[in-house]
Amino acid sequence: MANLATCPPLTRESVFEARKLIQSHIHKTPVLTNKTLSLMASTPRASSTVGDRKPAKPVIRLWFKCENMQRIGAFKARGAFHAIERLKLEPGWLENGGKSKGVVGFSAGNHAQALALAARENGITAHIVMPSTTRPYKIDATKGYGANVVVCGPKDREAVAAKIVSETGARLVPPFDHPGVILGQATVGLEMQDQIESLDAVIAPCSGGGLLSGVALSCEGTGRLLFREKTRPWDIIYERRLVGGMYAVSEEEILEATKLILERLKLVVEPAAAVPLAVALFNEEFRAMVEEEAGEKGWDLGLVLSGGNIGVDGLVKLFC
Amino acid sequence: MANLATCPPLTRESVFEARKLIQSHIHKTPVLTNKTLSLMASTPRASSTVGDRKPAKPVIRLWFKCENMQRIGAFKARGAFHAIERLKLEPGWLENGGKSKGVVGFSAGNHAQALALAARENGITAHIVMPSTTRPYKIDATKGYGANVVVCGPKDREAVAAKIVSETGARLVPPFDHPGVILGQATVGLEMQDQIESLDAVIAPCSGGGLLSGVALSCEGTGRLLFREKTRPWDIIYERRLVGGMYAVSEEEILEATKLILERLKLVVEPAAAVPLAVALFNEEFRAMVEEEAGEKGWDLGLVLSGGNIGVDGLVKLFC
Repeated sequence: MANLATCPPLTRESVFEARKLIQSHIHKTPVLTNKTLSLMASTPRASSTVGDRKPAKPVIRLWFKCENMQRIGAFKARGAFHAIERLKLEPGWLENGGKSKGVVGFSAGNHAQALALAARENGITAHIVMPSTTRPYKIDATKGYGANVVVCGPKDREAVAAKIVSETGARLVPPFDHPGVILGQATVGLEMQDQIESLDAVIAPCSGGGLLSGVALSCEGTGRLLFREKTRPWDIIYERRLVGGMYAVSEEEILEATKLILERLKLVVEPAAAVPLAVALFNEEFRAMVEEEAGEKGWDLGLVLSGGNIGVDGLVKLFC
Repeated sequence: MANLATCPPLTRESVFEARKLIQSHIHKTPVLTNKTLSLMASTPRASSTVGDRKPAKPVIRLWFKCENMQRIGAFKARGAFHAIERLKLEPGWLENGGKSKGVVGFSAGNHAQALALAARENGITAHIVMPSTTRPYKIDATKGYGANVVVCGPKDREAVAAKIVSETGARLVPPFDHPGVILGQATVGLEMQDQIESLDAVIAPCSGGGLLSGVALSCEGTGRLLFREKTRPWDIIYERRLVGGMYAVSEEEILEATKLILERLKLVVEPAAAVPLAVALFNEEFRAMVEEEAGEKGWDLGLVLSGGNIGVDGLVKLFC
């Protein structure tokens, strides 16, 4: 874990600092629009009439932030590079052989590749603990970035990572519950505010909460320190109320949204990255809220396409 | 067929005019780069040693022109919109009820959708003749753009199209052998010259020749009229020598290139759109030529990703 005493506070100000630290390492990913999908989002869902309630009629203009085109194919590159930059700034870390002691990450997915890449570019040893259930595609990619990959039982990853830390003196960079990681992911939100005129709202997938809480931070009007010893993403999401709402969608809806992104936007995304579009198209609670809040003017709604690491085999399995 | 007497000559000058006519209807599609793929292109293919000849060692920086993100998902939108704009400028066409008489196209693919869209946006009737072997995905998309789709036997399309012309007075807009279409497709090349600094060469798929000859035209230094009653694309490609070379790749190589574009660029493309990358990566004749011509400086090589209309079902079939 990074030294919390030297980590910057979780504020919008700190996100600007994070951007300065990582901008030479990451891509400013493009933002795309699509008339057909915006029209679909603005059309009532015929099938969604529930009891007396008519389908919502929101006006939604969609803006897709293509983090599937980020380095390593996902937003996770931002957090990993930022965590590493922060380590390098920590007094004594470099001088005490930090680079060769290295970093440790545990992840079944994109964080593994992100940390491996960020470590390699900085000449830092990376130990990546991956559960044996990880798709071979992702294990190979992580090894491809030069990491020492340790495969473990599905439930043992944190224990195995802790053992490596105690044996090697390497520093743990967790996948999301880490201020350096959160501030890095938060830079997605800043970029969207630059790239999208009159952005009204953003939907990001939640998962571990690093991306969601980061984006929320980046949109906060005033910087305010909130920094506790418990799980940070949930602090931001629940206690600071920077996130306006949490919405769920079904597996079928995610699959349908993934198909639309592939066929209409011509972009390869992981199913998790299609969750925001699924919410915009299919979650009636969200759609009714937009209709009520935005009225005829509607919303310019940013959707974070969080990653595209699925591989051709994964796509075939998904749609076979 | 458009009236050849009123069509502009096939010169670079005319491509600039074409761009003016269509730019409000089409997207200026993005150009992407990818370090990994450029590195692969610049690495000798281990498996390609033939006899005494060692694998070529070209230096190639790849630039991907994303026409899969063009309207209707392919560059064909350019040609169709330009052909329609040219019709509208033809003396008497509008006055004699041209819009309701309409246009006729025959195509199993992207030209069908492109002509249907361009016609609809101009309030023009579109009859599209599609062979019964066309994928349902493409037939549905064409109907979705409001066209009158006529399904015919695989070899009958030109005859059926001619019958519609004689019965309705509609004008034929062929998929590639048409100056209006070629000049429209050529605008891809102009955009690439704007978007890519020090572009050394472009690879475009050949197919019917409309895209290839258009791109060649757009790169021509001096405008020169060449306009005959025989097949125009081949005039440009062979007689005017604007195309530097023709290279072939195998089905396996195309499939491998398609996979790389999906997995590395995170872009959905049709296999035909992956042909230029397959040439850059696998065609030893091409690679040896680049090594010889460009030396250590290497080439900035533009690749036209011509289209992305494959659909999830098509992807599954391709990689199953």
